Amino acid sequence: MSVEPESLEALIAEFSNLPGIGHKTARRLAYHVLSKPKADVERFATSLTNAADRVHPCPKCHAFTDLDTCSTCTSRAGAKSLCVVEKSSDIMPFERSGVFKGLYFVLGGVISPLDGIGPENLHLPQLVARIKDEGIEELVLALGSSPEADSTSLMIDRMLAGTNVKRTRLARGIPMGSDLEFVDEVTMLRAFEGRVSL
Amino acid sequence: MSVEPESLEALIAEFSNLPGIGHKTARRLAYHVLSKPKADVERFATSLTNAADRVHPCPKCHAFTDLDTCSTCTSRAGAKSLCVVEKSSDIMPFERSGVFKGLYFVLGGVISPLDGIGPENLHLPQLVARIKDEGIEELVLALGSSPEADSTSLMIDRMLAGTNVKRTRLARGIPMGSDLEFVDEVTMLRAFEGRVSL
Repeated sequence: MSVEPESLEALIAEFSNLPGIGHKTARRLAYHVLSKPKADVERFATSLTNAADRVHPCPKCHAFTDLDTCSTCTSRAGAKSLCVVEKSSDIMPFERSGVFKGLYFVLGGVISPLDGIGPENLHLPQLVARIKDEGIEELVLALGSSPEADSTSLMIDRMLAGTNVKRTRLARGIPMGSDLEFVDEVTMLRAFEGRVSL
Repeated sequence: MSVEPESLEALIAEFSNLPGIGHKTARRLAYHVLSKPKADVERFATSLTNAADRVHPCPKCHAFTDLDTCSTCTSRAGAKSLCVVEKSSDIMPFERSGVFKGLYFVLGGVISPLDGIGPENLHLPQLVARIKDEGIEELVLALGSSPEADSTSLMIDRMLAGTNVKRTRLARGIPMGSDLEFVDEVTMLRAFEGRVSL
């Protein structure tokens, strides 16, 4: 026998659909939400529908935006550097560090035959068109560090062979503040291979 | 400069309000939600408002319900055992184990002067009234194992001194499947003190 009301069960099911949220956490969240004033829950629901209604991929860079063209594509129009990321949420770390003042492009994933993601599922033609249309001079490939990301970067690199576009990728090594004792083998291998003279 | 649309930021803020969800996880959840079809997001939003609209505390036991009186209070009317829990979500473990066939009562918290929760914030008068009205014979105090819960149990015990109501509390000891090596001191102390002969 279940003692939970049906509408509560439905809410628990919705929370369970979120990544990294198991059934127990979903229950805790749903009970928490119901312990709040009704106005708070309404505001949560409204923010969900608002975000779904207003946010869409920018037609130029495919990052999430609620404008016709995203603020970055507009304010940095004319920049000659383009940073290619896998997904929209990968842009924030660049912006937080303030290190990059160029344009972004969201590829929409990396090639992964096991997951059924081929080149045709990515925004590759749009990327090539944008590089050409806007006269991009440097392409920073920032597609993560999985083998799939590596081979996708390699493919993009080959697609642009014979053009004047400079292709770079992010440096790999020991992250800030990490204890050498706990660094994994691949990171260590790459950090050692990429060592620089003092 | 923020590259995130305002409605996305609002959604992240809502997720951050949930217990155990930090800003980074909130961002991940919000981006995940936006990557889903709009119909899924609408369904999530509807389940939030539905739950907030329909679910309310049962007037008899204060557990969440979407009925006038909750199904447990109705189907087990006349039972003479009453299990007192802190919050609505504490009922489920009892129902899952199937060990208890009596009624429940949600106290709404435990006395905690540091958090500003005194006896007047709990459903104590309603508890006493229900015990009297329904001729409850056994009260199972299942208020958790914090010092605050203990003193609340003690207070309820004293309130019922001089009545014929039997008061019990859950046994304390080593939980099922736990490794003795990792059992904390207080649990060990209680398990040892409460040892039973074979």
